[in-house]
Amino acid sequence: MIHLESDYNNGAHEVVLRHFFQTNAERTQSYGDDCFSQEARRLIREACAAPDAEIFFLAGGTQTNATILDCLLQPYEGVLCCDTAHINVHESGAVEFTGHKVLALPAREGKLAAGDLRAWLEGYFADGTAEHMVRPGAVYITFPTELGTLYSAAELRDIHSVCTDYQLPLYVDGARMAYGLAASTDVTLPFLAQIADVFYLGGTKCGALCGEAVVFPHGAAPAHMLSRIKQHGALLAKSRVVGVQFQALFSPAEDSLVADGAEEERVAECSPLYLSIGCHAVNLAMRLRRLFVDHLGYCPFIDSPTNQQFFVIPNDDLEGLRRHIGFEAWCPVDATHTACRFVTSWATTEEEIATLEQLLS
Amino acid sequence: MIHLESDYNNGAHEVVLRHFFQTNAERTQSYGDDCFSQEARRLIREACAAPDAEIFFLAGGTQTNATILDCLLQPYEGVLCCDTAHINVHESGAVEFTGHKVLALPAREGKLAAGDLRAWLEGYFADGTAEHMVRPGAVYITFPTELGTLYSAAELRDIHSVCTDYQLPLYVDGARMAYGLAASTDVTLPFLAQIADVFYLGGTKCGALCGEAVVFPHGAAPAHMLSRIKQHGALLAKSRVVGVQFQALFSPAEDSLVADGAEEERVAECSPLYLSIGCHAVNLAMRLRRLFVDHLGYCPFIDSPTNQQFFVIPNDDLEGLRRHIGFEAWCPVDATHTACRFVTSWATTEEEIATLEQLLS
Amino acid sequence: MIHLESDYNNGAHEVVLRHFFQTNAERTQSYGDDCFSQEARRLIREACAAPDAEIFFLAGGTQTNATILDCLLQPYEGVLCCDTAHINVHESGAVEFTGHKVLALPAREGKLAAGDLRAWLEGYFADGTAEHMVRPGAVYITFPTELGTLYSAAELRDIHSVCTDYQLPLYVDGARMAYGLAASTDVTLPFLAQIADVFYLGGTKCGALCGEAVVFPHGAAPAHMLSRIKQHGALLAKSRVVGVQFQALFSPAEDSLVADGAEEERVAECSPLYLSIGCHAVNLAMRLRRLFVDHLGYCPFIDSPTNQQFFVIPNDDLEGLRRHIGFEAWCPVDATHTACRFVTSWATTEEEIATLEQLLS
Amino acid sequence: MIHLESDYNNGAHEVVLRHFFQTNAERTQSYGDDCFSQEARRLIREACAAPDAEIFFLAGGTQTNATILDCLLQPYEGVLCCDTAHINVHESGAVEFTGHKVLALPAREGKLAAGDLRAWLEGYFADGTAEHMVRPGAVYITFPTELGTLYSAAELRDIHSVCTDYQLPLYVDGARMAYGLAASTDVTLPFLAQIADVFYLGGTKCGALCGEAVVFPHGAAPAHMLSRIKQHGALLAKSRVVGVQFQALFSPAEDSLVADGAEEERVAECSPLYLSIGCHAVNLAMRLRRLFVDHLGYCPFIDSPTNQQFFVIPNDDLEGLRRHIGFEAWCPVDATHTACRFVTSWATTEEEIATLEQLLS
Repeated sequence: MIHLESDYNNGAHEVVLRHFFQTNAERTQSYGDDCFSQEARRLIREACAAPDAEIFFLAGGTQTNATILDCLLQPYEGVLCCDTAHINVHESGAVEFTGHKVLALPAREGKLAAGDLRAWLEGYFADGTAEHMVRPGAVYITFPTELGTLYSAAELRDIHSVCTDYQLPLYVDGARMAYGLAASTDVTLPFLAQIADVFYLGGTKCGALCGEAVVFPHGAAPAHMLSRIKQHGALLAKSRVVGVQFQALFSPAEDSLVADGAEEERVAECSPLYLSIGCHAVNLAMRLRRLFVDHLGYCPFIDSPTNQQFFVIPNDDLEGLRRHIGFEAWCPVDATHTACRFVTSWATTEEEIATLEQLLS
Repeated sequence: MIHLESDYNNGAHEVVLRHFFQTNAERTQSYGDDCFSQEARRLIREACAAPDAEIFFLAGGTQTNATILDCLLQPYEGVLCCDTAHINVHESGAVEFTGHKVLALPAREGKLAAGDLRAWLEGYFADGTAEHMVRPGAVYITFPTELGTLYSAAELRDIHSVCTDYQLPLYVDGARMAYGLAASTDVTLPFLAQIADVFYLGGTKCGALCGEAVVFPHGAAPAHMLSRIKQHGALLAKSRVVGVQFQALFSPAEDSLVADGAEEERVAECSPLYLSIGCHAVNLAMRLRRLFVDHLGYCPFIDSPTNQQFFVIPNDDLEGLRRHIGFEAWCPVDATHTACRFVTSWATTEEEIATLEQLLS
Repeated sequence: MIHLESDYNNGAHEVVLRHFFQTNAERTQSYGDDCFSQEARRLIREACAAPDAEIFFLAGGTQTNATILDCLLQPYEGVLCCDTAHINVHESGAVEFTGHKVLALPAREGKLAAGDLRAWLEGYFADGTAEHMVRPGAVYITFPTELGTLYSAAELRDIHSVCTDYQLPLYVDGARMAYGLAASTDVTLPFLAQIADVFYLGGTKCGALCGEAVVFPHGAAPAHMLSRIKQHGALLAKSRVVGVQFQALFSPAEDSLVADGAEEERVAECSPLYLSIGCHAVNLAMRLRRLFVDHLGYCPFIDSPTNQQFFVIPNDDLEGLRRHIGFEAWCPVDATHTACRFVTSWATTEEEIATLEQLLS
Repeated sequence: MIHLESDYNNGAHEVVLRHFFQTNAERTQSYGDDCFSQEARRLIREACAAPDAEIFFLAGGTQTNATILDCLLQPYEGVLCCDTAHINVHESGAVEFTGHKVLALPAREGKLAAGDLRAWLEGYFADGTAEHMVRPGAVYITFPTELGTLYSAAELRDIHSVCTDYQLPLYVDGARMAYGLAASTDVTLPFLAQIADVFYLGGTKCGALCGEAVVFPHGAAPAHMLSRIKQHGALLAKSRVVGVQFQALFSPAEDSLVADGAEEERVAECSPLYLSIGCHAVNLAMRLRRLFVDHLGYCPFIDSPTNQQFFVIPNDDLEGLRRHIGFEAWCPVDATHTACRFVTSWATTEEEIATLEQLLS
């Protein structure tokens, strides 16, 4: 059985796990001041070419979104996003729980369009009753999106430009950032660090056991972040648990992978393990896509260049596929077809995809 | 340098860490349904003699308190505790952040007294303006307390009795439960499971990298807990991260410690690692106490039988001690003395204490 | 200048004001127990044919919506409504401020369609990820709607039926209820009391200085309402201020209007002043509509039978109209036309409309 | 029966009520922009000698406290007050409902002592774990206090000085401000406007039907107050309802009282009705006190110079007193005595007190 249900159904990348052993004996500070978190911050700043970045480590994605948005927003402000955004759909109302409205605009292929954003903002500020409506206080996008799609650098620049015009911070949810960076042709961490006011580098879905790294690339994090993170129940006493993992994820892949050997898709020679993990999964996702689309003749549900692939599968084929692959039924397409999601990750092996190719061809 | 600043300045117990390796290859369900969490639940139910217990795994302590209390309380209710309670002092207002007042009564040696509790409740319900005051909806105690003290079984029974009379759920914060159980002469997990409506077994301070196990011993957890935990940002997608650890912590110490050998203070032959960890730290704490009180002649600041020891140190001695030991200045006692906290844990070694004994005698 | 900007730009109906004088000397209980509130409750129960109704008086509409919805909903639940709903647009996020998501479905002429509601609920409960989404906990509609339209009795029955199937309480915002009841051909207060779980009778826009009457027609109000209303800052110490007004509004119009004489549109002989107020305003709105549509040839923007009339006005005509009438530009229709709102109320006089007819014909 | 249970068991001062009639025909703006609110603001600015004051009108006291404190505080901050403070005891947790902890210090005769405040703040900022505790963000006091006592100008200056040193805004709850100003020998509105960052002038208990005037004497109100007030459910659409009343209350008492004639305790010739109301009630409270203490020999429970008088009454006398007077049992003093509260107001008449003097002497 090949498991492609999700990118969080596995353990941790071996390098990450090994790093826990290597560091276990050390006694450290807590609440974020431990040496592993400090070193992880240094590595991330370097990878982002953002020497002034302030960086915080939290345990999970929904927690990160709710906490950081609450810190970005004034209590009377809401957050703009597209209607397929994770915060609008799949976080059990965690943003509203902190008092903020999610202001959702219609998505285009899972993305927020700069033009839609600008039009909405023009409408809001032209409205004589604006004070009776929820004031927009930040813009939220995901990279890659919930549907596996990616913003181009140009699209991000356009959104950034709207945000600048309206003085709204741009927040990028990077739960699957490793896969997005690997798949993008023109978006890099340094670029992201230029156009975003804050973003997070997802660990949970990208090789870690848990943990997300929140980056304020220009510094300028809100005041008293430690206290606010704790107020949201998101401050880890033993902060090294995330620090150790991000130190491993942002160490050069070369070093970190010496023991593994066979990572053939490795990107630039000294790129961090984090990016190497993304490339591995995206390469396998592309092979999967060729198998499903070119060989098996299924239609893509949406054109995704990342580790999440969505295909339209005839309902009659579902049971057969399920014998070999674990995957998720995403949504019905019509009476006889279902859009299904297949997710690769750092844990998916070439052997697994090769097996699938043999079984299904 | 011997580090006695806290019980969260270390990594994880070796057995816990090793279990990550042993389980890493497996693909699992997520959001709490993984096989490791399921097995950990089985082991905890067994240790608590509570076959109907519902158990949830969260990442950290403040998060656990805020989430569980919010689920226990009606939106218009507050939580009763003593004024030294962690939720009242050191959680950055996380409980109030969810809308609930912390109703604090004066502590007696870090503990809530059943008599004080009953008197307060009698006063509240006799007050003609009660509807204008915050209604009490739960009682919170810590075991052991923030000052290292312990409730006796009789004291817990008395508190339980007041709770029953007023139909208030009793919630026990067990951030350091392993150490409390090891030090208590009459409180066991099965006893706790009888008198508490919900408690948590702390992992972070008791051998895990992170994670707390919330136990509703009689079942009867509030509805839609998964959704509420997520709403609080406390649901881990890769729930195995905590499940794996609690599976290790609640496996018999015998098995789990085979590879270690030298754990001489081991309790009953098939007791879980969790209890064995507690005994180890408490034994060392007692040696520390003999050293400081009997040999060095310092006064205890409070009479603690657990892994947190508080001594009154002349300010002139502080610098000297700091050359050998890391510890925390707790509070000034008078112009020339400071109460200081020294904390042992599963990670403290006999060698470290022996070294201290030599250095300081 | 004829003021048709809103139905809250005036004082109070003379009968209401006079009642303040008549009752001023009396000393009463407070916090809702005063004799005027008690008598007002009796009159409202009678008007609703709901002898078991529990009734609460609050000061304003947004406060009422936010407070009552928060009491109806579990903390993890959201409220379903259509996207033009007042709570979704024009209450500055007061519902989200209390932690609840507003789950907005596309409106049809300002109304929530029972079919859309059912389809959404079917989809929600069929979704395997429902626990990660906000659970629906109540349905909110307005009568009349923000666009002046009305649900028919059949439409309300259909919505009620969906609510019953899914065990969702139905909440009706009646900020302009007097005008809705006057305009409807088949919806009465007793009917509303049958199909709604809770509704409010708006005072502020229907003849009072301030105040709204929240009616739980079947009893069964949530526990500790007084305390919760106070927690929301919505409990009036001197509760008589609203009680006195609703006593006047629900006294028979006959009696109450003796001193006025000329209320010719009076409905059934012993109908409360509240309904008589509605009839008066709706009659004048219909005259206004005939003037604008039949005589002046403007198109209705939406077909409203109530006191809010929306016409599509050529931008070139706006200035001219503004010389005689105060009204509100609602939204642009195209480059040369604007939808404008004209609102009558109990305070609009026949003379004013007659004057307009002369000026504009 | 003479009613001294509270100062909100009556209607409105005749001048206030009459002003409703005089203004009823006028059509006005809404949401605070009406001409009556504007004129009331001008009068209040004048009375406070605070030409830059920003002024907002809300409906009730708990609402005002919760809304204004939430606007003053950052989301992670709490409010300092004494433990008898209304927000700490009798507002059903409305402040905590908005997410803020009430940081209560022991009261001295119902008052917060500047020395206690400074000591607490010194302790907080010296504490190494301050980031884990709730940060103080404002100081709340009541004038007069819940026990009828008054801060002297010197005491207020001392508190102000602590607030300045720690950059904390000082908020004064003036639910009974009229009575406090009348009783104080050295605190005036202009003085208060100098030392407070924001205060409110209570209407509900001081002659109005409802309504409180929030004054930011130096301007500098938080941004988007209208939107925030609405978010708290505290924005009145028909804002004139409070504006009209405060216009009456702050018009010169001379003018306003022409029709009344007999207000003999009138203060300075052109003082506002608001102050005249306070003097009237305080004068009668002093007569009451002479009757109870000097003639009847009861002990004061606390030494109150304002309209709330507390006497220690033998339980055996309670029933007899209740035959003539309505009052409130405040709290038991010992097995045979009860502290009872007797409250005068603008509505108490000299005849009523004279009757009591006859009956009880």
